[in-house]
Amino acid sequence: MTPVRRTLAADLPALAGSQVTIRGWIYRLRVLAKTTFLIIRDCTGEVQCVGPTASLHDLRPKVDDAIEVRGTVRQDDRARRGIEIDVESATLLNRAAPLLPFTSSSDVTGVGLDILTEYRPLALRNDRVGDIFRIQAAILKHFRDYLTSQRFTEIVSSKIVASGTEGGTNLFEIKYFDRIAYLAQSPQFYKEHGVVGFERVFETGHVYRAEPHATSRHLTEYYSLDFEMGFIDGPEDVVQVERELLTYIFDKLNAEHAALLGRYRSAPLPSMLDVPIWTFAECLERLGRADLVDDLDPDAERELCRLAEREHGIPAVFVLGFPLAARPFYTYPLTNTSAAGFDLLFNGMEITTGGQRLHRRGDLEDALRMRGISAAPFDSHLKMFDLGMPPHGGLAIGLERVTAQILGLQNVREATLYPRDRYRVTP
Amino acid sequence: MTPVRRTLAADLPALAGSQVTIRGWIYRLRVLAKTTFLIIRDCTGEVQCVGPTASLHDLRPKVDDAIEVRGTVRQDDRARRGIEIDVESATLLNRAAPLLPFTSSSDVTGVGLDILTEYRPLALRNDRVGDIFRIQAAILKHFRDYLTSQRFTEIVSSKIVASGTEGGTNLFEIKYFDRIAYLAQSPQFYKEHGVVGFERVFETGHVYRAEPHATSRHLTEYYSLDFEMGFIDGPEDVVQVERELLTYIFDKLNAEHAALLGRYRSAPLPSMLDVPIWTFAECLERLGRADLVDDLDPDAERELCRLAEREHGIPAVFVLGFPLAARPFYTYPLTNTSAAGFDLLFNGMEITTGGQRLHRRGDLEDALRMRGISAAPFDSHLKMFDLGMPPHGGLAIGLERVTAQILGLQNVREATLYPRDRYRVTP
Repeated sequence: MTPVRRTLAADLPALAGSQVTIRGWIYRLRVLAKTTFLIIRDCTGEVQCVGPTASLHDLRPKVDDAIEVRGTVRQDDRARRGIEIDVESATLLNRAAPLLPFTSSSDVTGVGLDILTEYRPLALRNDRVGDIFRIQAAILKHFRDYLTSQRFTEIVSSKIVASGTEGGTNLFEIKYFDRIAYLAQSPQFYKEHGVVGFERVFETGHVYRAEPHATSRHLTEYYSLDFEMGFIDGPEDVVQVERELLTYIFDKLNAEHAALLGRYRSAPLPSMLDVPIWTFAECLERLGRADLVDDLDPDAERELCRLAEREHGIPAVFVLGFPLAARPFYTYPLTNTSAAGFDLLFNGMEITTGGQRLHRRGDLEDALRMRGISAAPFDSHLKMFDLGMPPHGGLAIGLERVTAQILGLQNVREATLYPRDRYRVTP
Repeated sequence: MTPVRRTLAADLPALAGSQVTIRGWIYRLRVLAKTTFLIIRDCTGEVQCVGPTASLHDLRPKVDDAIEVRGTVRQDDRARRGIEIDVESATLLNRAAPLLPFTSSSDVTGVGLDILTEYRPLALRNDRVGDIFRIQAAILKHFRDYLTSQRFTEIVSSKIVASGTEGGTNLFEIKYFDRIAYLAQSPQFYKEHGVVGFERVFETGHVYRAEPHATSRHLTEYYSLDFEMGFIDGPEDVVQVERELLTYIFDKLNAEHAALLGRYRSAPLPSMLDVPIWTFAECLERLGRADLVDDLDPDAERELCRLAEREHGIPAVFVLGFPLAARPFYTYPLTNTSAAGFDLLFNGMEITTGGQRLHRRGDLEDALRMRGISAAPFDSHLKMFDLGMPPHGGLAIGLERVTAQILGLQNVREATLYPRDRYRVTP
């Protein structure tokens, strides 16, 4: 027997009068004495199916069962998208368990993050959660598309490394045959090497930090959106690419996901073209916070976004010129004591770290020496600066953080399919 | 002083008569008594610069130095793209070391893979190597674009897992705070979970196998192009999506990279729509190889591709129905003893493994029991089959392998920016 051709929900409106087979999940179910109404969803949409309760009774269908329905498409102007299906026969392809903590159509706003994570696949079928990851997939697509259009080449670098990029703290050890290797904290070195080859490169991939604290903003494994570009004049060139990149992504999200964003936000995403640059010193002055020395803290990040919104209408600010000693050794100096490195704060949280990097081998060796870091483990890296390395810079955006800040989520884990922290390696 | 605006090589033809500043690498250099000719390349193209040898002498420019040139664009119909630059001043932004094993414009066909890997960034600037990774980036783009157009949603799953997908062999151990975790061998379980949520999902990411052998086709870390789809009738549905997916990718590569492909291949990439499906038993018969029991070997893969090319004009074949016992426990059966799993062989090598998977929890528990694998470590995975898991299947394409087979490379490491094997964790 040839298998029956399955029709997708999105293709049904053109098929009024035809006999079809659809497959999907029961999203809603209403059983009356004579008639049963089933709303069935697949990856393209949903359709209401109507059948006699008597003949469907033995099937004992329930919400979230996987089902196949054969029937005839009937035009019905009262129905969504103008059609319904009159059920002729139905088969359950697989049952959902009878007692689940929520369903694909229930209100999950009160369901805890632990339960949503434990039942992640079912949560994804619920729009409230699924939409977060649809937005995340769209961010990924538009990040790559924009940079590709600007002559950046995608690279795939190794996540198994012989030493860390920042001197060996917070590294996860891997037992690698008869030696120890580490999980990469960042593709920093590889994307700088990529500049030597392609001038402009990007990478999207996991990075790893053995964060001892499990806060609402930290993960031990997160997805980093990186780019790096050569022949720049200064960190402002990198800032400008990020302004244009985020504006491109936000415009696309506003255009393609307006209804979805509307369920999370009161206004569309802003243009980022006019996000200001404030120096670190200027930020401390605006905040009146003499206690901050090396870096901002979460309160300061929130307050700076509020100030930027008041002054510029956008809750975002680039903070440039952190103390040089507090940034990684490869950071280019802005002044004797401040770094040509920046963070982007957006909606109250840092979502990007970037800047200009040292491009001369001698300067890197000096920087390592000044910090008391041995140059030997960096030897194969330093060699790459002998290949005509141009002045360059770049940045890294945390995918989970930018997703969370776009949607106003309280915990970065809400925007992580399978979050990893000190206490969690499943599911 | 405001920095001078840099002009990209691609924008020069429209600027005849203007004064410009360009930045890039010296690709070729010819110093005559009176005149020096420099070909300078950036990420958008190249341009010839002409200047008086007397004034450029002190600069001592050489191939692969990073340079900035100011000058005037002059129309010259003999030049590539119709323009040259008359040099007014030049500055070296960073020197390349004087003794390098090759340059960006030298013939690297005789340079060993070890040297090309050790100097990877410089090798990327040489088209012979750079083109491999340009093709790889294009494969990635078109893989994602095609699946997105077919309603697949991109997911990002964790690479840190509590146990392996295939029962615990060849796993890398991570020291994860006070416990042991592992690097994921595949996103198999997560993409199956993704089917429960989104019906159709894809992921591009690293996977890890502690392969004890360092062959020309194996890596300990490779980049896997995965998709998984629900509500299928059988493995042929997955095969059909791969035929259409690869045909889409190959058509795009032929259209966008014809000249590049022509340097590696004698003919454009074929349509994959008519790639045949042969059963494993049929393959053994065609080969007359009674010694193969569980799987094919490299000789068999090459010979089957030759046979397929002779019969169908395409050096590719889907092999379906491997012995069930030789495939992972989650494989759906085709017959009592054969698996609804397939490999795609292309140009003499397996580049894809895929198939239909078991979708009922009870069947998975039986399969584990039959193989003597304890079900306990799979408990959180098995629970996902209680959420209305539909019949489903999918596949994984090795990015490095498909790149190598498209370009006819002899070693998968040639298509890996930073290869990892038992003996190599740098650079």
